[in-house]
Amino acid sequence: MADYMSMEHLKFLLHEVHGIDEVVKLDRFKDFDKDSIDMLLDSAKSWADQEWYPYFREMDEKPVYYKDGKVYSHPQLKTILKQAGENGWIGTYFDHKDGGMQMPHTLSLATDHIFESANNNLKGYLGLTAGSAYLIVSYGAEALTAKYVPLMLSGEWSGTMCLTEPQAGSSLSDIKTTAIPQADGSYKIKGQKIFISGGDHQASDNFVHLVLARIEGAPAGTKGISLFVVPKQMPQDDGTLKDNDVITAGDFQKLGQRGYSTVHLVFGENEGCVGELIGEANKGLKYMFQMMNGARLAVGVSAASTATAAYYASLQYAKERPQGRRMESGGRKNVNEEQTLIINHADVRRMLFLQKAIVEGAMSLLIEAAKYSDMAEQGPEEHRQENHQLLELLTPIAKTYPSEKGKTAIDNGLQVLGGYGFCTDFVLQQYYRDIRIMSIYEGTTGIQSQDLLGRKVTMDNGASLQLLMGKITEVMNDAQNYDELKPYAKQLKERLDDVQTALTKLIPIAMKGDHELFLMDASIFMRMMSNVVIAYQWLKMAVVAKTALVTGNGSMDAKFYESKIHTMKFYFKYELTEVTSCLETLMSDEVLTLVDEEIEILV
Amino acid sequence: MADYMSMEHLKFLLHEVHGIDEVVKLDRFKDFDKDSIDMLLDSAKSWADQEWYPYFREMDEKPVYYKDGKVYSHPQLKTILKQAGENGWIGTYFDHKDGGMQMPHTLSLATDHIFESANNNLKGYLGLTAGSAYLIVSYGAEALTAKYVPLMLSGEWSGTMCLTEPQAGSSLSDIKTTAIPQADGSYKIKGQKIFISGGDHQASDNFVHLVLARIEGAPAGTKGISLFVVPKQMPQDDGTLKDNDVITAGDFQKLGQRGYSTVHLVFGENEGCVGELIGEANKGLKYMFQMMNGARLAVGVSAASTATAAYYASLQYAKERPQGRRMESGGRKNVNEEQTLIINHADVRRMLFLQKAIVEGAMSLLIEAAKYSDMAEQGPEEHRQENHQLLELLTPIAKTYPSEKGKTAIDNGLQVLGGYGFCTDFVLQQYYRDIRIMSIYEGTTGIQSQDLLGRKVTMDNGASLQLLMGKITEVMNDAQNYDELKPYAKQLKERLDDVQTALTKLIPIAMKGDHELFLMDASIFMRMMSNVVIAYQWLKMAVVAKTALVTGNGSMDAKFYESKIHTMKFYFKYELTEVTSCLETLMSDEVLTLVDEEIEILV
Repeated sequence: MADYMSMEHLKFLLHEVHGIDEVVKLDRFKDFDKDSIDMLLDSAKSWADQEWYPYFREMDEKPVYYKDGKVYSHPQLKTILKQAGENGWIGTYFDHKDGGMQMPHTLSLATDHIFESANNNLKGYLGLTAGSAYLIVSYGAEALTAKYVPLMLSGEWSGTMCLTEPQAGSSLSDIKTTAIPQADGSYKIKGQKIFISGGDHQASDNFVHLVLARIEGAPAGTKGISLFVVPKQMPQDDGTLKDNDVITAGDFQKLGQRGYSTVHLVFGENEGCVGELIGEANKGLKYMFQMMNGARLAVGVSAASTATAAYYASLQYAKERPQGRRMESGGRKNVNEEQTLIINHADVRRMLFLQKAIVEGAMSLLIEAAKYSDMAEQGPEEHRQENHQLLELLTPIAKTYPSEKGKTAIDNGLQVLGGYGFCTDFVLQQYYRDIRIMSIYEGTTGIQSQDLLGRKVTMDNGASLQLLMGKITEVMNDAQNYDELKPYAKQLKERLDDVQTALTKLIPIAMKGDHELFLMDASIFMRMMSNVVIAYQWLKMAVVAKTALVTGNGSMDAKFYESKIHTMKFYFKYELTEVTSCLETLMSDEVLTLVDEEIEILV
Repeated sequence: MADYMSMEHLKFLLHEVHGIDEVVKLDRFKDFDKDSIDMLLDSAKSWADQEWYPYFREMDEKPVYYKDGKVYSHPQLKTILKQAGENGWIGTYFDHKDGGMQMPHTLSLATDHIFESANNNLKGYLGLTAGSAYLIVSYGAEALTAKYVPLMLSGEWSGTMCLTEPQAGSSLSDIKTTAIPQADGSYKIKGQKIFISGGDHQASDNFVHLVLARIEGAPAGTKGISLFVVPKQMPQDDGTLKDNDVITAGDFQKLGQRGYSTVHLVFGENEGCVGELIGEANKGLKYMFQMMNGARLAVGVSAASTATAAYYASLQYAKERPQGRRMESGGRKNVNEEQTLIINHADVRRMLFLQKAIVEGAMSLLIEAAKYSDMAEQGPEEHRQENHQLLELLTPIAKTYPSEKGKTAIDNGLQVLGGYGFCTDFVLQQYYRDIRIMSIYEGTTGIQSQDLLGRKVTMDNGASLQLLMGKITEVMNDAQNYDELKPYAKQLKERLDDVQTALTKLIPIAMKGDHELFLMDASIFMRMMSNVVIAYQWLKMAVVAKTALVTGNGSMDAKFYESKIHTMKFYFKYELTEVTSCLETLMSDEVLTLVDEEIEILV
């Protein structure tokens, strides 16, 4: 079995860096302790080794296809859904009463990392089923929960989220799917949805679609959107299923994630599609955002995990492939020597450390975000608000950083293999294709960046950002205990000041109300801010590693901790430096990307 | 016919920015003038429109395949080879006496841009045939030229370059293919070569392989490599062809350029493979580098052209796709308004301008390099040396910048299309895959970077770099004539000083002989230097555009010139800023990527 992720790094993050023990101390999670967490992780890994990873390449080579109104996916999907249902891997964070494992999000996200690293084409099917079921549990009537959720958590039925329409894309205000109230309290649904992940396949008996639609006469824009449960087949009182006029019109053929279906659905073409309202009318988008926020973190995990697997594939190659020789004094190479392994070439090492710095940093951020989510929901009342604010602030970053920098990581992984990296005999090209969707899923990087700068940074007068600065300051203070780490704390402080400098320029523009100008370079601000946040993760890991080395109290070996400190230094030298460029761009007074009304000079 | 490149930009570069008139004044090129150049470009475009572009997607969807010892490519390849042979498009820069068009490299590269933009899966077949024939003409005996070259230029036979072997990869010192001298002056060849582009297909009657091999008893390393012509079928005196024991063992299936064959060849498995020595023994690598340097520029053109075509595909989409609304004061959007075109969103405009800045800047650099090549070969004697030095210095940059930043450009192009960009119904995903090989072909980015910093920048005591600085200074001086351009000249000057600062740190390390340390971050230096060189191209274009606007003497309309100046400003705000980060990295004293002999901490 090839390595595709590091259990050591994952356990280090959970136990030593982010203190999952604080989470499992909470009442809701009292079934868990360090041992049971590790056992659960190990059992996830063992399942992933046996049932997920071996099918990863095959699912790409024999992609999902559409024929005669049906979508055909790889047969392993049925096995995975069945086993996941039997062993509780769908309802991980659900209440025991709803048939869940009542796991903390922190732990659930950690197991997701294992599955996504093993096979990023499969996890989405489970994740969307869980997400949609959780939304029904959270906002739907009890009858809806009883009707749908048990069969979703058992892996028999699948769930989806249906937002995008052909004419609207990211612009949800323009959704046109309609819902007409019926005498029995249900609604007639009519419309089309595209890009529905996991929206159809032969491995489930039924599909529970959560559909955004507009009730007749609802206000324009997002204020008039409601959320409906629209099953592919409607469960009848007698336990049978009745066709609900949901037609699968096609499956999109894609660059990557070719084992994951992406369908085009047509609701109510024959006027026979019935939906059931979730919660109150016109509050659909609010409800959907519970699932959406979870989905954004899930995309971050998928991206970070895909890049993790690519890192290990390229590391393994670099450790096995001899080529060329190290340079001697004067730049000469002794051709009579045996060839060296390519891991010994500086530029190859740079490409490997870059991958490591990106993927391990990204996973650290994701675990931290998941912990804020647990603490916001279950932690001490007096801190819930601030944990929620931190989660809100970090969500767009935790989605975007792994998606964007994950591409860079895999690009470097492929390059390590040279010509072989470009060949389909090697797996790197699949990771390269698979990850490309992550910066588009669930709100593109452009949209995440507007969310970060336009909403999250400014909300509550910047309180969330202040909370984050506080967290970072704590870590910088901890770093002061070690001479080796002091220079990095100083460097991080300077980069934090850069973020502040940029905001001091940008916020007054927002105050004046010129939001187009304010948000013009939001994606550059995202690049800057996410870079600083990952540097904070690295300094945090380095402090923990250094402490373990000094005290001898860590559970890993010295090489492991040395590697963390070294990679932190790598990050600061090669990646954090990007912040300076971003600042330069943001401080420029030139306005070059807003439309000039007179002529279109983009030719 | 969709736009896939801009004839206006190409003519602007040739006539207004880089003064091809100076080239065609030279005796060798006296058949050419502005009108005939434009006619030639237009006829290339018209051929590309009709015969190249329409087959681009199909060649990807029905890729080259291997069956029973043979390689099958798309049938259009045969048409292209035939028409290219008939119309002189293979031997563009060859002498009239050798059956060529005697075109300047500058013009030939310009036509390559048209073909590569139309279909990057086809041009390589012609380019390698031309390159290998040119090498035979340049270094081979007259009899070899007579035997091979006419049928290569007519498109009947194809040529290849055979360097890579499975155990050697980029390390040419480790080539093992052997050549055993025979009584008749020929050599028996035995060995394997992999990744041979265009190395076999059904559209040619014969293949003329140029093979690097080691004559029995030759010195170790690159000093013992000789170059041989090894045809797939050996032409006999009676005009027939005799099988030459060159076996096609397979065709590599690839991420992209799936219409371009990449074969595995086995020479002399049955002891029946004969090769003919080119020039002198043990000088093979020197000869091969004539072809290699040309091939590096050709890869740069292919990368820049692939990204150009992607730019136009995404621009067209952005001009046609309505979605969302522009922000009004206070960040609100009026949902009762009609949707706007996505080209009007700031972040989409940023992604489009970024692509434009990269692809047009890259093409400008490539044309400049080609002009140095013409002036070095045909220009006034007293300047040939310096033109050669400039060409040598710019070659690794002209190969690497388009390959590396072309990926970024296409990544942004795909993002402009959102979810559709990831779908195979749209072409962006093909460009995204195709370009990925460019930073690996003909020396990876790591190798180009070592060449740039380790050889080109330091050669002749830095004389080449001084020459380039002189060229850049001229443009900065010209920019001083216009208030609008002054700030950019100043900015470029500062970034040039940054390059100098980095070298002031790095060169003494080389002087001390610690080459591994010196070249450790060569790829960061490449990023910095190529960025500055492209900024110089943009300032040069802006000066020409501004002059045309002020004098009214330009041949394009005002919008065209305004667009150049605007894109220059964009480049300086969003791209040139990267230099600062690179400098920060290069000035760091940390050594993090050289092997620590004691333990391997890369885990």
